[in-house]
Amino acid sequence: MSEVRTLKVALLGCGNVGAQVARILIDDAEALAARSGARLELSGIAVRTIDAPRDVELPRELFTTDADTLVKDADLVIELMGGIEPARSLILTAIQNGACVVTGNKALLAQDGPTLYEEADKAGVQLSYEAAVAGAIPILRPIRDSLSGDRITRVLGIVNGTTNFILDQMDTTGAQFADALAEAQRLGYAEADPTADVEGHDAAAKAAILASLSFHTRFSLDDVYCEGITKVSAADIASAKEAGFVIKLLAIAEKIDSSDNGSGISVRVHPTLLPREHPLAAVRGAFNAVFIEAENAGELMFYGQGAGGTPTASAVLGDLVSAARRLVLGGPGRTETTTGHVPALAIDASTTSYYIGLDVADQAGVLARIAHIFAENGVSIEIMRQTIHRDSGSNVASAELKIVTHRASEAALAATVEAVKGLDVINSVTSVLRVEGV
Amino acid sequence: MSEVRTLKVALLGCGNVGAQVARILIDDAEALAARSGARLELSGIAVRTIDAPRDVELPRELFTTDADTLVKDADLVIELMGGIEPARSLILTAIQNGACVVTGNKALLAQDGPTLYEEADKAGVQLSYEAAVAGAIPILRPIRDSLSGDRITRVLGIVNGTTNFILDQMDTTGAQFADALAEAQRLGYAEADPTADVEGHDAAAKAAILASLSFHTRFSLDDVYCEGITKVSAADIASAKEAGFVIKLLAIAEKIDSSDNGSGISVRVHPTLLPREHPLAAVRGAFNAVFIEAENAGELMFYGQGAGGTPTASAVLGDLVSAARRLVLGGPGRTETTTGHVPALAIDASTTSYYIGLDVADQAGVLARIAHIFAENGVSIEIMRQTIHRDSGSNVASAELKIVTHRASEAALAATVEAVKGLDVINSVTSVLRVEGV
Repeated sequence: MSEVRTLKVALLGCGNVGAQVARILIDDAEALAARSGARLELSGIAVRTIDAPRDVELPRELFTTDADTLVKDADLVIELMGGIEPARSLILTAIQNGACVVTGNKALLAQDGPTLYEEADKAGVQLSYEAAVAGAIPILRPIRDSLSGDRITRVLGIVNGTTNFILDQMDTTGAQFADALAEAQRLGYAEADPTADVEGHDAAAKAAILASLSFHTRFSLDDVYCEGITKVSAADIASAKEAGFVIKLLAIAEKIDSSDNGSGISVRVHPTLLPREHPLAAVRGAFNAVFIEAENAGELMFYGQGAGGTPTASAVLGDLVSAARRLVLGGPGRTETTTGHVPALAIDASTTSYYIGLDVADQAGVLARIAHIFAENGVSIEIMRQTIHRDSGSNVASAELKIVTHRASEAALAATVEAVKGLDVINSVTSVLRVEGV
Repeated sequence: MSEVRTLKVALLGCGNVGAQVARILIDDAEALAARSGARLELSGIAVRTIDAPRDVELPRELFTTDADTLVKDADLVIELMGGIEPARSLILTAIQNGACVVTGNKALLAQDGPTLYEEADKAGVQLSYEAAVAGAIPILRPIRDSLSGDRITRVLGIVNGTTNFILDQMDTTGAQFADALAEAQRLGYAEADPTADVEGHDAAAKAAILASLSFHTRFSLDDVYCEGITKVSAADIASAKEAGFVIKLLAIAEKIDSSDNGSGISVRVHPTLLPREHPLAAVRGAFNAVFIEAENAGELMFYGQGAGGTPTASAVLGDLVSAARRLVLGGPGRTETTTGHVPALAIDASTTSYYIGLDVADQAGVLARIAHIFAENGVSIEIMRQTIHRDSGSNVASAELKIVTHRASEAALAATVEAVKGLDVINSVTSVLRVEGV
């Protein structure tokens, strides 16, 4: 090409990821121009404090506190400020001005994605957000484009590196949650206030985004059942390990066709047992992975780094180059279809297998009584294993009972556990954990 | 939408994959229309023999032997005939008529891709071929789009299910190559004439395609060094296993910057040792996976089914829906950038680690003499392990020497092995295998 167009790129936010995006835009300008067919000129970086300390040294004249003016003069806007406002308003301004937007803001998308997608559709611009889920791993584009001729039936994702690191530590070293969390904080994998990670809120936002794309229907955070990992004990991990499982915090979106609970999509985040031979079980440390089951494609897995400035910047720049190509070559930017219109199901309507640990009195007939309660509530037992503990005098003390069920509804399981608790022979219910991949 | 456009889809070929594509186009017409924004009407299926037996029952009136007429009247053409002609001419006719083309023909793309890509660019139509590499796994689109703002440095792929099945069998059961091949043939994983798979030709075609997209330069089959798995013995596998490795047939494309051999891309297919903890080592049976290393994204892996009618049909239909969206929404279809212009390097210029097994006389000074030869040839030894075999009378018989080197050039390694063979204390060189992932 003799004449190369220049596209102005406005960057909003210069944290961990933003600083790397700016660096690559400057350092790799030539390669990015060759790939996108246009010069991508970083026209400015909007920040709160111009002279704040940053990871990367960048030309001071690029910085501005006037995000609004910067956005209005841009062809492409990269939003990496995080949070709801002013990110939301700035993105809407960009869209209304005909700019394509790239964002990594999962909280905003999970809360208010539908409005943003609609505005982008109306304006005929692209709104891309590969960086919002599973960092560097290309997962949203494959779901949206590569699997567009298939039907996804289920998505299981390890989409939060902090919790995966903590659970992996607990699994490897036998540590308690609090100690593993402290280690994660020491190594920089967990923040000082780890709530958003350990309570599953971060994973829940990503689950809403994954579910929306996978099932062509817009789900928001309100549709996601969320349970974090703070109650997972070293004993849970040890007990799961002994039974051949590993515990992972999974973001799950799956299609449910049930005559009892209706048909729809169950979107949920909770600690989950996975058989050790499941591909997701091998995802260690702070890595992320998304496992997809589709009617025709079968099982697929996408694995890589889920966070970090440079890996996440790779996803941002992939979106940016793709958007620039579109601008150069023409053609509008409809980025997803939302014709599914399937309802989100409450957690009660989802079915999984369960692992239940019970501390019971070792009396004749106990197993039969427990099995009877399961049957009464329509929960089928797959495996039941009893370990008897005797005291030093070889007298009967108590027994440990481990049960893995077939798939059952959340409601049936809850009723079963309630009824079991009421038995006089039950000392305690030690674990109730969901199982996938069996 | 009140008014929905209809796009005519011509299907060329009705084998394993084609029959599934036709079935899904008919059965899932409604969902495909919702996702692409147009009705996708299967206007005909070109075959050699109308009444040949097929996997799926399809309306007889769809079949025709006149591929040429069918193609000229189509908006979208799916080529699944395989082979070079008439596939090549039909694709060119489709492109010249302004139709978008979806193909899974790796042999044609590896041999004559550059011509086809250029013609498609000139005509402003899309030529998509996700199904050509790793079946159902979305790998080409992520490389082309998601990683377009990054620099890929290396691709390691298990892209042939037949050979992965055979090697996995050998690894699991200790079988010899011939027995594992027979088992693969019995189970339908290998064809009666397995040459294209076991000699690595199929993987080599895929390596050329992967290298072209990853390094923005067009590589053809002639640029690929290719070595199959027929010489891999049960002893090689056992010996690798003992040392903590698994043997996989890998398609490798990597960037090499060397002052000695020049800079460029090494594209090659050969049996390769991988540490058992490497993510690719866990890819069992006939599954495929592609492992990518990129400057910013770090390590990524894509895993799934590499073959089979239905999984591959999923990839074909993903391309079809994406192409249809483009036709509906407007905008041309440039599908890749080829501005890299980096040279393909001969196998001599590539560097890997090597595993070398030697049967040596157990004499004083043997290790030193061998180590000296390695040093002389600039090959650095990482691990050297000697196992001494004594005969029943406890007399010295021979020793087995296992060496893992640091990264060395193919040329230096060849010279080293030649020199070692010349030593009088060497009974035989039992294995020379490349190692990746260490």
